[in-house]
Amino acid sequence: MSKKIGIIGGIGWPSSIEYYRLICEASQQYHSGMAIEGPTPMPEMVIESLDMNFTVNNRGSSAPGSWDQWDRYFQDAIARLERSGAELILLASVTPHARLAQITANTSLPVVNYYQALGDYCRSKNIEQMLVLGTMPTMTTAAFKIGLQAFGVEAQYPPNDGVKQQLVTIIDALYQNKTQGAASAIEDIVSLCISPEQRHNTAICLACTELPLAFENSANEAQFDVGELRYLNSTVIHAAAAFQACIA
Amino acid sequence: MSKKIGIIGGIGWPSSIEYYRLICEASQQYHSGMAIEGPTPMPEMVIESLDMNFTVNNRGSSAPGSWDQWDRYFQDAIARLERSGAELILLASVTPHARLAQITANTSLPVVNYYQALGDYCRSKNIEQMLVLGTMPTMTTAAFKIGLQAFGVEAQYPPNDGVKQQLVTIIDALYQNKTQGAASAIEDIVSLCISPEQRHNTAICLACTELPLAFENSANEAQFDVGELRYLNSTVIHAAAAFQACIA
Repeated sequence: MSKKIGIIGGIGWPSSIEYYRLICEASQQYHSGMAIEGPTPMPEMVIESLDMNFTVNNRGSSAPGSWDQWDRYFQDAIARLERSGAELILLASVTPHARLAQITANTSLPVVNYYQALGDYCRSKNIEQMLVLGTMPTMTTAAFKIGLQAFGVEAQYPPNDGVKQQLVTIIDALYQNKTQGAASAIEDIVSLCISPEQRHNTAICLACTELPLAFENSANEAQFDVGELRYLNSTVIHAAAAFQACIA
Repeated sequence: MSKKIGIIGGIGWPSSIEYYRLICEASQQYHSGMAIEGPTPMPEMVIESLDMNFTVNNRGSSAPGSWDQWDRYFQDAIARLERSGAELILLASVTPHARLAQITANTSLPVVNYYQALGDYCRSKNIEQMLVLGTMPTMTTAAFKIGLQAFGVEAQYPPNDGVKQQLVTIIDALYQNKTQGAASAIEDIVSLCISPEQRHNTAICLACTELPLAFENSANEAQFDVGELRYLNSTVIHAAAAFQACIA
């Protein structure tokens, strides 16, 4: 009997589809070969799909209290998931994890922690260095670095605003399904971020849902190699952790 | 300000993805050209993703009361959607509409009625004859025929169990993404169902989410022609009605 998963979605909606698909396919894989009567059992889920226009337009600053409205929007949604019988909580995208502690402050439910899922994965693969490629909030707040530190992983971001902005431009194009040339553009950015000596021991974490679209056939792989670079698809890793938690 | 949509999903999960994607893309199209600050506004949605193993294994028969448990599973999910602030209800697949009246018996919320969406569409296109291709419950209960009658549309099902079973086999293959040869197999079934004279005035309703996968590039089209046959993609028509209801 699996636990009911409560999902915060809509940030953005293609991420929600990706997480939902990966969880359902994980359930199909988990049950394959079992003697099951009828269709493959699926965990029950409840998804609160929020309005990303509201969340982006209500981002705070460094001023005290400026994130209150943003935090409350997520907290209220988690409270609704809880009332609907969710037994664990999943934020279905990387970006809101920058404020994970605040968002989940009022719930007693277990949260499928993105940093823990990624940290556990890195430990199992002996990954200790990581370049994080994600959205601007991911690359400009300390949460990701701090979250991975606990697992002995040193995470670094692109070194300056210009490179970060180049990456965001690629993400925007991928969001519109413009994939041509994206893989080599990402490789160019990697070259600006890490030295040739670092390439063999630094994993490149694709820390938003759009970036893996640049690499055909990698949508279901937790990691894959292109030349001497190892890429991590953290959406796959996080969704797999959610399914594991729901059958635990 | 859009209304919050409450969606019954998971029956099956690829249908949920398709409805969710179509609603989000409808919102993108609706807002295109508007002066919007930040990302495209999206309707808030809450999705109860149910376990199709439970629903299939708890189908009733013609015996009185045999559907009670099945009906209650859906009714309880709709009650949770209502508590989470849903302002209208959408069943994100065709099959459960066979028991639409029972499922929605206890809610006072408006329901985006599949038959009404399809019936309105047929009226606007002067469609009066329809061949319904769907899952076995869709093709063996009267609900679809009765639902369309009110709109002056005469719906017919494949003429016998053998042909219906052939169709279900195609749907099963499409569900596993085996699309090769599916379009011509569907055309063969159509030939077994309607006479050459009927071909020009009978629309072929693809009344489950898998069937349109057989026709490449038709995923977003409410209708499309192949040779002299006109196909309707009722998922597109139903999802469009849901978005219209949410901004009304």
